[in-house]
Amino acid sequence: MSVLFERIGLLYTGDPEREEIEDAALVVEDGRVVWTGAAGEDPGADERVDVGGRCVIPGFVDSHAHLVFAGDRTAEFAARMSGEPYTAGGIRTTVAATRAATGDLLAGRTAALVAEMLAQGTTTVEIKSGYGLTVEDERRSLEIAGRFTTETTYLGAHVVPPGTSADDYVRTVTGEMLTACAPYARWVDVFCERGAFDADQSREILFAGVKAGLMPRIHANQLGNGPGARIAAEVGAASADHCTHLTDDDVLALSSAGVVATLLPGAEFSTRSPYPDARRLLDAGVTVALATDCNPGSSFTSSMPFCLALAVREMRMTPLEAIRAATHGGARALRRDDVGTLRVGARGDLVVLDAPSYVHLAYRPGVPLVDQVWREGRRLV
Amino acid sequence: MSVLFERIGLLYTGDPEREEIEDAALVVEDGRVVWTGAAGEDPGADERVDVGGRCVIPGFVDSHAHLVFAGDRTAEFAARMSGEPYTAGGIRTTVAATRAATGDLLAGRTAALVAEMLAQGTTTVEIKSGYGLTVEDERRSLEIAGRFTTETTYLGAHVVPPGTSADDYVRTVTGEMLTACAPYARWVDVFCERGAFDADQSREILFAGVKAGLMPRIHANQLGNGPGARIAAEVGAASADHCTHLTDDDVLALSSAGVVATLLPGAEFSTRSPYPDARRLLDAGVTVALATDCNPGSSFTSSMPFCLALAVREMRMTPLEAIRAATHGGARALRRDDVGTLRVGARGDLVVLDAPSYVHLAYRPGVPLVDQVWREGRRLV
Ligand SMILES: [Zn+2]
Ligand SMILES: [Zn+2]
Repeated sequence: MSVLFERIGLLYTGDPEREEIEDAALVVEDGRVVWTGAAGEDPGADERVDVGGRCVIPGFVDSHAHLVFAGDRTAEFAARMSGEPYTAGGIRTTVAATRAATGDLLAGRTAALVAEMLAQGTTTVEIKSGYGLTVEDERRSLEIAGRFTTETTYLGAHVVPPGTSADDYVRTVTGEMLTACAPYARWVDVFCERGAFDADQSREILFAGVKAGLMPRIHANQLGNGPGARIAAEVGAASADHCTHLTDDDVLALSSAGVVATLLPGAEFSTRSPYPDARRLLDAGVTVALATDCNPGSSFTSSMPFCLALAVREMRMTPLEAIRAATHGGARALRRDDVGTLRVGARGDLVVLDAPSYVHLAYRPGVPLVDQVWREGRRLV
Repeated sequence: MSVLFERIGLLYTGDPEREEIEDAALVVEDGRVVWTGAAGEDPGADERVDVGGRCVIPGFVDSHAHLVFAGDRTAEFAARMSGEPYTAGGIRTTVAATRAATGDLLAGRTAALVAEMLAQGTTTVEIKSGYGLTVEDERRSLEIAGRFTTETTYLGAHVVPPGTSADDYVRTVTGEMLTACAPYARWVDVFCERGAFDADQSREILFAGVKAGLMPRIHANQLGNGPGARIAAEVGAASADHCTHLTDDDVLALSSAGVVATLLPGAEFSTRSPYPDARRLLDAGVTVALATDCNPGSSFTSSMPFCLALAVREMRMTPLEAIRAATHGGARALRRDDVGTLRVGARGDLVVLDAPSYVHLAYRPGVPLVDQVWREGRRLV
């Protein structure tokens, strides 16, 4: 079964060999891209989709999202944005609600967010645990995440739960909890930040995960300077995420070790924090990814187009660099080469934009521009 | 014919008497709101719509938009955002393309933008001329605008067209062009800014419009300090739009004269300019409106939710102040009391959000949260 996408006004392939093709066509067969090229030169296919001059891009790869949770933090957000003090809860509210929720409720809410992402063009999403913080609640979160993606991340080390000492908790995270979670996870992650886990704890947690067969990634340098980015380089993490505060040495470490810097501008937007400077990273040769950080506390957007527009407005990325980061960059952050581009051999995961160019994702911020979403050659939206 | 909206989790009425009602219901009859109140106390209706606990708000009132144009300025935007010089065109590109376009093409493109706005919850939109800049092209733009809204604005004084002296052009704008355009317009507007029209010219243009039966509004203080806001107060304009750079005297003038300050954060977003401080205006008792400024040069968003999220992030508005400004504020800027609220007697123009609260418009930026759009009691989206 093959599908020919014809009359593509602009095809962003993400393939460095031929990154953009005007007046293009593309053929997907058995779920994979088998041909891209100029309109009229296509080899034909069983079925034809007339794109009507619009732009086609790879499906977005959202490489950082916290989707398995329950509870509501609307009031906390409203208070923060109104400059009012808000003493209740924070992440603890989400942890309590997540533990109390039934598996069906958690799965239903995760499904709704994944569907919302798909409608906005995200065809690959990473999903973390981290709101359970007990052996069974973390395991359950990962089991649910695994129903929606293969990119599951064990983030038992999100925060030390109340009533536990940090040392005891690290022991659990690297011991019993890891044993229970590893079968459900592809990645191990730690929130390396003042108030969460320090350098030694972060190293210990990531190395324990690696020993259990997981690949490391890290929440690093979000709230201030710290050791996170350098630990990412040291342990060979696929990605250091946030990277809002980096020294020159941090940038060099990421660049030398080939660690992807995953920038999460939705978090800066929703916490009124300064944005990271993507230009500095790009100029140093670091691969940049953009992701939503979708979570109920600091970034409740599920919209990759929104993050891309912010990256252009606030982080000194060009529209081309931003679309790269939101597709191929995300794929690099997940060490995937089958998604994030539309080169021959890649998965037929693509988005038809209701626009003549991917530039419109930044040029027309907030406007829903995703017209069609296809995954492995099948239309889902 | 009456419709009962039941199981409304949160009803934002915009009526100061009872601005928000939890667990509410609302009845629309013959296009008007006839009842709002607590769930279970409703008087019944011919038809029932189960809102399922979600939030209902008035349709957005977008009081500032430039929708009648042709041509493409994607490359200009991409160059600006990439820090590259771009010498071609600017607004002249749009003027040339608009003049060259057929009426059908212009109407079709306007219709597409109006439909896009409707899908994002905008039930009332103001549409300006200003890309024709000849007697016939301005008249034609307003005739087309009038097919989509009663809020049509004559903006012949958008910029002095090339090849004309400013004095000659002002004579045309206040003479022949005004005569041709006035029958198609409700408002007269002028771009009062260095490089466009100065204080004397702006006064002359607005007074000529008023004499021809139009009501004044003004593009003021966008790029720097200037006389625009004070002229707005002087001529009794309904609204001073942009207001990015204001002195204390300007704020006082707006407040004393009851001029609405219409803030257009999409323009600041897309030109990387500093945002106006809405808090300062609100604290001085000025009514604030939010609008998109939708246009191909400086703000190509059609999304009121996006503008509202920016207002909260960047302009020190609370979520409540932002929803007010995007509904009731816009109505005040258009001197309308039949839209922008859901009090009894108002038009049955409403939006069902896919969220439990209007706070989510800021809390979940970029996410398409408009589930249903009703105008005068009929479902359109
Ligand atoms: Zn995170
Ligand atoms: Zn304007």
